[in-house]
Amino acid sequence: MVKERIRAWMREHTEEAVQFLSALVQEASLSGQETGAQQRVADKLATLGLIVDMWEPGGEELIRHPYFCSPRQSFIGSPNVVGVWKGCGGGRSLILNGHIDIVPPGDTSRWTADPYSGRVENGRVYGRGTTDMKGGNVSLLLAIQCLKELDVQLKGDVIFQSVIEEESGGSGTLAAVLRGYTADAAIIPEPTGMKIFPKQQGSMWFRIHVYGRAAHGGTRYEGVSAIEKSVLVMEAVRSLEQKRNEVITDPLYAATPIPIPINIGKISGGDWPSSVPDVVVLEGRMGVAPEEELDMARQCLDDALMQIEDDWLRDNPPELEWFGAQWVPGSLDTEHELMNCLVDAYRNILEEEPVVEAAPWGTDGGLLAKVGETPAVVFGPGTTALAHYPDEHIEIARMMACAEVVALSVLQWCGVRGS
Amino acid sequence: MVKERIRAWMREHTEEAVQFLSALVQEASLSGQETGAQQRVADKLATLGLIVDMWEPGGEELIRHPYFCSPRQSFIGSPNVVGVWKGCGGGRSLILNGHIDIVPPGDTSRWTADPYSGRVENGRVYGRGTTDMKGGNVSLLLAIQCLKELDVQLKGDVIFQSVIEEESGGSGTLAAVLRGYTADAAIIPEPTGMKIFPKQQGSMWFRIHVYGRAAHGGTRYEGVSAIEKSVLVMEAVRSLEQKRNEVITDPLYAATPIPIPINIGKISGGDWPSSVPDVVVLEGRMGVAPEEELDMARQCLDDALMQIEDDWLRDNPPELEWFGAQWVPGSLDTEHELMNCLVDAYRNILEEEPVVEAAPWGTDGGLLAKVGETPAVVFGPGTTALAHYPDEHIEIARMMACAEVVALSVLQWCGVRGS
Repeated sequence: MVKERIRAWMREHTEEAVQFLSALVQEASLSGQETGAQQRVADKLATLGLIVDMWEPGGEELIRHPYFCSPRQSFIGSPNVVGVWKGCGGGRSLILNGHIDIVPPGDTSRWTADPYSGRVENGRVYGRGTTDMKGGNVSLLLAIQCLKELDVQLKGDVIFQSVIEEESGGSGTLAAVLRGYTADAAIIPEPTGMKIFPKQQGSMWFRIHVYGRAAHGGTRYEGVSAIEKSVLVMEAVRSLEQKRNEVITDPLYAATPIPIPINIGKISGGDWPSSVPDVVVLEGRMGVAPEEELDMARQCLDDALMQIEDDWLRDNPPELEWFGAQWVPGSLDTEHELMNCLVDAYRNILEEEPVVEAAPWGTDGGLLAKVGETPAVVFGPGTTALAHYPDEHIEIARMMACAEVVALSVLQWCGVRGS
Repeated sequence: MVKERIRAWMREHTEEAVQFLSALVQEASLSGQETGAQQRVADKLATLGLIVDMWEPGGEELIRHPYFCSPRQSFIGSPNVVGVWKGCGGGRSLILNGHIDIVPPGDTSRWTADPYSGRVENGRVYGRGTTDMKGGNVSLLLAIQCLKELDVQLKGDVIFQSVIEEESGGSGTLAAVLRGYTADAAIIPEPTGMKIFPKQQGSMWFRIHVYGRAAHGGTRYEGVSAIEKSVLVMEAVRSLEQKRNEVITDPLYAATPIPIPINIGKISGGDWPSSVPDVVVLEGRMGVAPEEELDMARQCLDDALMQIEDDWLRDNPPELEWFGAQWVPGSLDTEHELMNCLVDAYRNILEEEPVVEAAPWGTDGGLLAKVGETPAVVFGPGTTALAHYPDEHIEIARMMACAEVVALSVLQWCGVRGS
């Protein structure tokens, strides 16, 4: 029985997988420093016999693309890596997509050890990127290696992608799509904690300038406080959030208190305790529903700000801009055949019912679907709560279980010759 | 008639006064850089025949004094200057107090010319400190010079003080008081726009840390926004302000919408658009009523913060600290004899009824009264609206008129030998 053969293979290769993950974590693949990690991935893919394509994204088609979103325009020193395992034909193709870029470690004094140690302890591998998402990437590579070494002949192609820039707006995946790498579907092992997320919330960052009129604090009534006006703006944002979430009835969001939140993450204004502040800047993140267009969401916020009932704000309207990263939302029908494959494989391996929900954050799946016409589902071994935090780590057992589920899903989706 | 002789003298000395003010403005007496300006003042006082005392404040008595408030503890290079005109006896003494320190010019590109030009144009002298308050100081010096040159023999002493640090909490005036310079009353020519302010609002700066709990913006409901909690804190501050002002019935505040405002001047919090912010810092200025103790006012704000009805804030109370500058409030009875002198002199010189109000800001008068038992009234030629702003300037005619009013008031208060 194939499940048993996969499990046995995984058991034998756990040690090797852990070593590979540790090595990958030790390559601190921060934005702009991805070459070391990507070279390891490319070498691994070559060893497995895949056709390896390693290139630095760039060019007008990418930079001018309407979905291009990045703080940089040059990716010299930041290669994408793709490995293709050609099937023998007649099957469905599958993209296995994981990002290699990691977020900065933050205050390293809050880490128990070096953020890039890749140390192994209590059945976990520690380090920045373990959960988000090098552990997931290793699950994908294990699945491929396992099927290769079990001499499986797939009908459909498997396209493994190790992309840059997911944390900054997805230009790595966009570049891969534009290079022609699309498929019938995709799996992305972002840290879902082994939940299956057929839908993913998109998100965009915004900045609002709220204006007031300066005055001396002792005669504050001669001025208009931009801080007080920013409270009205925040109330408008809160009531827009409520309005947008009331209409979401998707059962995948049943357990989510606020399916698509609007978060105000940053505020700053004024420069002197005894002056009335004349400008406040708010920065935040707007959630975008799985089926929503980014432009529609932008318009909602713009409208909400323009409709605030306040004479001062009507005459001195807040200024809204969109900046920084964005994540395109994604939505796969829960009845999609890839969902069936994944859910079946999960039941088979984990011997329990999987949790199927909507992701509270965006992934590169939105770009794969929207630009590459490759619908994606997100399923991975990491834990959101650990991503971007000190002492990030991943459970080795989960990474291996995820690899088993992915291997079985690949078999079912791509099809096996002669079966 | 003495009024006419004073007026004639002033007319003859306008040119000289303007030149002296320009020179004083050209000495940019920012905190720590007062020596040049103070030397000019000391020279002037010596020329007028006053006993000149120029010293750098310091010592334990000053630094440990309960009303000491300064960002620095050493005043090396920052001398105070006092000039004493001894009366012949039998009269009341009078302090004429003005500060020599100026606030920074801010963004110099918003100035039409060099902030320290001291240029004369359209009957005005321009430059940082003209209105706040070197123009007022020159009015005081003119009054003394005029009475000296008219050979007036005063009964009471006149004590002219050119003090440092008014803009940073009054340690210059405090040092003068501790050195023994007190009197029966005082006049301070801060920029009142020729209004007479027997009462002055005190003020203190505060900083409030408001805490939340961080979370990812996509699951913001897992966190507690310090920005949202800071709105509750600001509401509490606003309602405290209302409560404190409702009880103020002093007719001097009849024309003031909010006699003792609490201003939130600065807000900052959060460090990432898509994170729930876990701390917000508010900075503000609390007005203190003329008869109120600083400690009582502090307690009011502390109580208001502790009484916010919110479970999170009860378990995670905001932290309140008092920092930076403070100004002790001051209050002179409107029936005080110095008020009568000043009002009479004003009517006599300006031939109209003076406006008598309460100052919306603090001066060194609070310290003179509270520590030096020298009640003070504030009356000066500058304009609050120009103080601390680009293109600060003073009307020369007002500076001269103020000098005339002060000269006449000195005559009446201190008394003249043989009259």
